[in-house]
Amino acid sequence: MEYPPSVRTLLDRVHAAEGDAVVVSAKSARYAGVVMPHHGFSGEDILTIKLDNGYNIGIPAGDIKSIELTAKHTAGKVERRLPLSQAGRPTVAVLGTGGTIASYVDYRTGAVHPAVTAEELVFSVPELLDVCNVRARVLYRIYSENLRPENWQHLAREAAKELNGGAAGVIIPHGTDTLHFTTAALCFMLRDLTGPVVAVGAQRSSDRPSSDAASNLLAAAHVATANLGEVLLVMHGDTSDGHAAIHRGTKVRKMHASRRDAFRSMNEVPLGRVTADGAVEISGAVLPRSKGPVTVDDRLDPSVALVQFHPGQTPAHLEGVLADVHGAVIAGTGLGHVAHDLIPVLGKAARKGVAIVMTTQTLQGRVNLNVYDTGRDLLKAGVLSGEDMLPETACVKLMWVLGHTRDPAEVAKAMGTNVARELNPTIGLDAFAE
Amino acid sequence: MEYPPSVRTLLDRVHAAEGDAVVVSAKSARYAGVVMPHHGFSGEDILTIKLDNGYNIGIPAGDIKSIELTAKHTAGKVERRLPLSQAGRPTVAVLGTGGTIASYVDYRTGAVHPAVTAEELVFSVPELLDVCNVRARVLYRIYSENLRPENWQHLAREAAKELNGGAAGVIIPHGTDTLHFTTAALCFMLRDLTGPVVAVGAQRSSDRPSSDAASNLLAAAHVATANLGEVLLVMHGDTSDGHAAIHRGTKVRKMHASRRDAFRSMNEVPLGRVTADGAVEISGAVLPRSKGPVTVDDRLDPSVALVQFHPGQTPAHLEGVLADVHGAVIAGTGLGHVAHDLIPVLGKAARKGVAIVMTTQTLQGRVNLNVYDTGRDLLKAGVLSGEDMLPETACVKLMWVLGHTRDPAEVAKAMGTNVARELNPTIGLDAFAE
Repeated sequence: MEYPPSVRTLLDRVHAAEGDAVVVSAKSARYAGVVMPHHGFSGEDILTIKLDNGYNIGIPAGDIKSIELTAKHTAGKVERRLPLSQAGRPTVAVLGTGGTIASYVDYRTGAVHPAVTAEELVFSVPELLDVCNVRARVLYRIYSENLRPENWQHLAREAAKELNGGAAGVIIPHGTDTLHFTTAALCFMLRDLTGPVVAVGAQRSSDRPSSDAASNLLAAAHVATANLGEVLLVMHGDTSDGHAAIHRGTKVRKMHASRRDAFRSMNEVPLGRVTADGAVEISGAVLPRSKGPVTVDDRLDPSVALVQFHPGQTPAHLEGVLADVHGAVIAGTGLGHVAHDLIPVLGKAARKGVAIVMTTQTLQGRVNLNVYDTGRDLLKAGVLSGEDMLPETACVKLMWVLGHTRDPAEVAKAMGTNVARELNPTIGLDAFAE
Repeated sequence: MEYPPSVRTLLDRVHAAEGDAVVVSAKSARYAGVVMPHHGFSGEDILTIKLDNGYNIGIPAGDIKSIELTAKHTAGKVERRLPLSQAGRPTVAVLGTGGTIASYVDYRTGAVHPAVTAEELVFSVPELLDVCNVRARVLYRIYSENLRPENWQHLAREAAKELNGGAAGVIIPHGTDTLHFTTAALCFMLRDLTGPVVAVGAQRSSDRPSSDAASNLLAAAHVATANLGEVLLVMHGDTSDGHAAIHRGTKVRKMHASRRDAFRSMNEVPLGRVTADGAVEISGAVLPRSKGPVTVDDRLDPSVALVQFHPGQTPAHLEGVLADVHGAVIAGTGLGHVAHDLIPVLGKAARKGVAIVMTTQTLQGRVNLNVYDTGRDLLKAGVLSGEDMLPETACVKLMWVLGHTRDPAEVAKAMGTNVARELNPTIGLDAFAE
């Protein structure tokens, strides 16, 4: 993006352009670095310089006393093409969706851009090509908070197409914000997987020394070539070790805003890990590759609300929240509770045909509506137990179930059926057996 | 509660009453145990027997072939009165609110009832009297999901009254479901504490061998007599050890539906612990007792919605959710994001004077609205950063702030002010410095 005139003028005065090395004398300090492109979301009058230590710094035009051009950028545009497939190696399909992991370091300016072409996507981690042949496509360039249920449907169809077209596995680089919603959706939609569908993200972009983009994508490639027939999420395992964790797509949640080990299996231990050497170690129960073909059941009704109960929530407010939806997942307290004056509101909605599923805002443990009378009253009101499902997984599952039927008995049956190991019957029972 | 006629008739036939030992021959098995009182939420025709192993079992009247009376209950009613205060010991005020911890084992039947009197409350854990003199009152008998913001206000006033009346500390036995909402509210409302205000709960009722009721209340008593001037939450520390953890009231959350170590400090390590021997070990930064007097600032506007963003949430739905509230806390994704088509809805609400605060549904880490353009757009729309506050704490804080002012600039200032160490400035910064 072009700099606005205030900054442009300062640069033009010394014939400096993006990618050139400069020394900027500002009010409080001098900065030596490379001129970065203007960011749309930077202030209007900010010149951005990439310092030698990799930091970007924004300098207000008004603070700049002088700019000295120290070196013109000389390197030409590097042509990068995917190499030809090598015989004997598995071919993995990479379906780019966007997010931090799919960002591409511009070799001219050092700036990070979203990968636009398949080549850029793959060459953000050229080490991929040591593990497998790669067939890459950029489906979207979308921050994951902007992905919609229709993207999940499209992704499911594309993943199936790749597997049925001979790919050994599918890697889906994806923004981390809603990564676990997408994996849950793919779990419900994809059947008879002939190879793994591996969603992967990065918490730190690839221009930062602490980036997890390359290591996560490489780990995903190892998982994508293993004998697995499930939808998995592969991310950095913990802060002290080089391993990546392999999570089941329905039992995982982003549990930290910025740490690289943000993703945690909930109500389940991770299914396995990828060591720093690239070995895939599976410790949980997973499906092997099926004989196929992969089928897609992508019917979905996105008219589902996810509602967290809290003290002070009024019946009138809840009634409004439930007014125009076909289903709602409630994240209740503890074993799955809400205030007693909200139960009639849920009952009224259920009688009107709105599917109401109770989960717990504790995220861990199991809903049990049989322990206290609050729970019993909820059951009487027609509320379904979400068992040990995460609220997010229950939300996606309810969308998928309502895409197939709105008959209350059918919905109740489907929500209680273990479709993609989203229900872990061993969780939380101990607490009630003692 | 009286049994309905179908069961009553069977019992009367053999002159059996509550508390008597019986052997019931039912269709499939014989059960030896003690006749329990009828529960209001049991089925109409269910006879409840407490087996020797402590389990209660419900037997449908229609399945009962015969009842044999094996022993009449003989023990008389035990008179229990609180002992007189002992000189030289601190006096702790116990303000009962209800919940599992305040349940009282009926020595006649072995059934668990909510404590109705102060004596029952204290004698649910008579060991309390070894630690301190006790001044007990039952304020409510309410499952904590039914506590309301006005209860928080009342509790704050009562706690202040006790401390200003000479109590060394205050213990608030409380249901666990919304325990952390209450502690957050008390943190914002109480100033210059002359002693600790200690909220405590139990995950397993006191009729169960694995109950944590007694140990938690005892640990709370030790904390209540220590040199602390804060609102704290004391609960079972972990499953392998006898210690209890001491959490700051604004930085704690229930993270498991049923485990005894369900409460976790979030974005902070626990402030300390109580060992199995009753020693209070403080490792974090806490305020000592102030000279007082304790003051209460209990103004509160409960018109706040807590909204979790999820893919598929529509602008129209969000608009409905925000239509009638004075404030909303959004639990966004990752660093604090929502889909771009929701940002204008938030902006419109903010322009109408609705205070919008962004938190993260990851629960851990820090909101940062300066990293991606989604965040910058949210800031431009007038959304406030909830920093590293839990969504629940931000919700309670916003209620408290809106109780004082609805002026947008004042609200913004107050939300960014560290009132009760709800903001931990050290959290999540590392991730952006690398």
